[in-house]
Amino acid sequence: MMRILKRLLLALTLAFSLAPAVADPLPSWSDAPAKQAITDFVDAVTTEGSEDFVPVPERIAVFDNDGTLWVEQPMYTQLAFVLDRLKEMASEHPEWQEQQPYKAALEGDQEALGEAGMEGLMKLLMATHAGMTSAEFAGLAADWIGTARHPRFERPYTELVYQPMLELLEYLRANGFKTYIVSGGGIAFMRPWTEQVYGIPPEQVVGSQIELAYEVQDGKPVIVRQPEIAFIDDKAGKPVGIMRHIGRRPLLAFGNSDGDYQMLEWTTAGPGSRLGLLLHHDDGEREYAYDRESHFGRLDRGLDDAAEKGWQIVSMKRDWASVFPNAGPQAGQ
Amino acid sequence: MMRILKRLLLALTLAFSLAPAVADPLPSWSDAPAKQAITDFVDAVTTEGSEDFVPVPERIAVFDNDGTLWVEQPMYTQLAFVLDRLKEMASEHPEWQEQQPYKAALEGDQEALGEAGMEGLMKLLMATHAGMTSAEFAGLAADWIGTARHPRFERPYTELVYQPMLELLEYLRANGFKTYIVSGGGIAFMRPWTEQVYGIPPEQVVGSQIELAYEVQDGKPVIVRQPEIAFIDDKAGKPVGIMRHIGRRPLLAFGNSDGDYQMLEWTTAGPGSRLGLLLHHDDGEREYAYDRESHFGRLDRGLDDAAEKGWQIVSMKRDWASVFPNAGPQAGQ
Ligand SMILES: [Ca+2]
Ligand SMILES: [Ca+2]
Repeated sequence: MMRILKRLLLALTLAFSLAPAVADPLPSWSDAPAKQAITDFVDAVTTEGSEDFVPVPERIAVFDNDGTLWVEQPMYTQLAFVLDRLKEMASEHPEWQEQQPYKAALEGDQEALGEAGMEGLMKLLMATHAGMTSAEFAGLAADWIGTARHPRFERPYTELVYQPMLELLEYLRANGFKTYIVSGGGIAFMRPWTEQVYGIPPEQVVGSQIELAYEVQDGKPVIVRQPEIAFIDDKAGKPVGIMRHIGRRPLLAFGNSDGDYQMLEWTTAGPGSRLGLLLHHDDGEREYAYDRESHFGRLDRGLDDAAEKGWQIVSMKRDWASVFPNAGPQAGQ
Repeated sequence: MMRILKRLLLALTLAFSLAPAVADPLPSWSDAPAKQAITDFVDAVTTEGSEDFVPVPERIAVFDNDGTLWVEQPMYTQLAFVLDRLKEMASEHPEWQEQQPYKAALEGDQEALGEAGMEGLMKLLMATHAGMTSAEFAGLAADWIGTARHPRFERPYTELVYQPMLELLEYLRANGFKTYIVSGGGIAFMRPWTEQVYGIPPEQVVGSQIELAYEVQDGKPVIVRQPEIAFIDDKAGKPVGIMRHIGRRPLLAFGNSDGDYQMLEWTTAGPGSRLGLLLHHDDGEREYAYDRESHFGRLDRGLDDAAEKGWQIVSMKRDWASVFPNAGPQAGQ
């Protein structure tokens, strides 16, 4: 009897001491195809002696932001920021009442805004955010993100990041990956909060940019934001942005729209084991359901070609056990 | 007697056991003002509780490359690479015999080349290196750097990096700094070898750039180098390049010419403890002596303003105990 008890105790001790090592690093991912594809890929590139082994410095993973790491409906979060800024400035710009995309912005005409696309968004960005220093803009972005609330979920936008993606970022970093954001959104809008929210520091954020100029104002050096587009980090711009900022082809690329098509295409065409993933928003209850017809985050060509390209479709409904972190009572349920 | 011997033994043991902790991390730096300024600065920003303490993620150090990390005389190394490429291509371009800066390049007219400046260099770069993929260009740069020799020292250029700077890079990294190159030279020329030579990975190299285009050629995605300047990372472009790539103001900036003036100015204008350093090439015996009148790496305004700005002038003659790594017999001596 004592011997059996001792054995049991030993077995329990072993089980508990092993537990941390085998704990699931992706608890918010259902036991479904996407999770399997991710862990198979990470095992392949991190197992020494494996033919697909990749040394740590070359382990680069890139993530789209809007609709991949956080909510992009009913509109891009950056656009909500822009709209708030425009409303504050409108009285000084009577011409905006008739001129697109300003008119659409002030009237909240989301269809017209969606049609204006990323370039329209950049115009609104310039109208509202050029002519100030980089430090001033970072302050505005940080202040807004700290106070604004999502209209449906009534939570700060930084709480409407996807819990499974936070786990995936951490899982990749624990396996020696450097994680990057590669977004069509403005680089300066993201950098003030990505380190705190995603664990991604400013130097690992790639995004669209306006021109910058270095000036000395009253003896004080500043960087002034200019009303001119320098680079749009969307579609074919994404592989270019990756080459400019990182200079290596990623091993893993994760997006959610046709704006990520070329980023996935370039990533997965590299030699060895690569992983391309597309989040499919098919869960209108917990989040939103949209794809081929959406004004924001349209996913059409990617859905058609994913099987042929070997890209993993991540179904929010099937693959995610939970959506948001520390989910309290959610609106719409 | 035994007691005295035992005490002596204990003292010796302690001294040896402490030795690794107090080993000089900068053995190639003479006990002179520059070394003192560097270690004082690092102590200030890394000592917890110090009023100048800076958390690890914000410890950014930026280094010019040509003339700061490696030799830039008798001409920029990248220019030697360009000249070799031009000579190979000249028979297909008879118009280059009369057209600047191509004529100067083919004739080895260094004065005319110096006058053409960084923009002239960029023109030559485009003529010789656009119209191919990024991968092809990386291969050409890597092949050349592996075989070319410096005309005076008769060693590979990658051995003509400065030993004190290699030690400084390592010392800063050991103290939690992320080290970056911020160079007027071409980003794609540096990235193939900076990781091996300096321990600086491609994603921490900022430099001048030509336009890039993403294309799918025969079903294979590639990034093609375009014959158009995208960004010149020199003078006022350096703080802009830092903001684009890093998004934080550095704590330390190290340069050697007036092309680094704004980088040092912006860096040292930040709050808290900052360090700006300028390498003064005043050692014609071991390396080269040049400053205000040089075609490459002209240092004029920086020398005038260093004292007022609080920048540390690093005299190669006074501050460096050795210049190159594993110095064998050197030409010119
Ligand atoms: Ca997206
Ligand atoms: Ca230089």
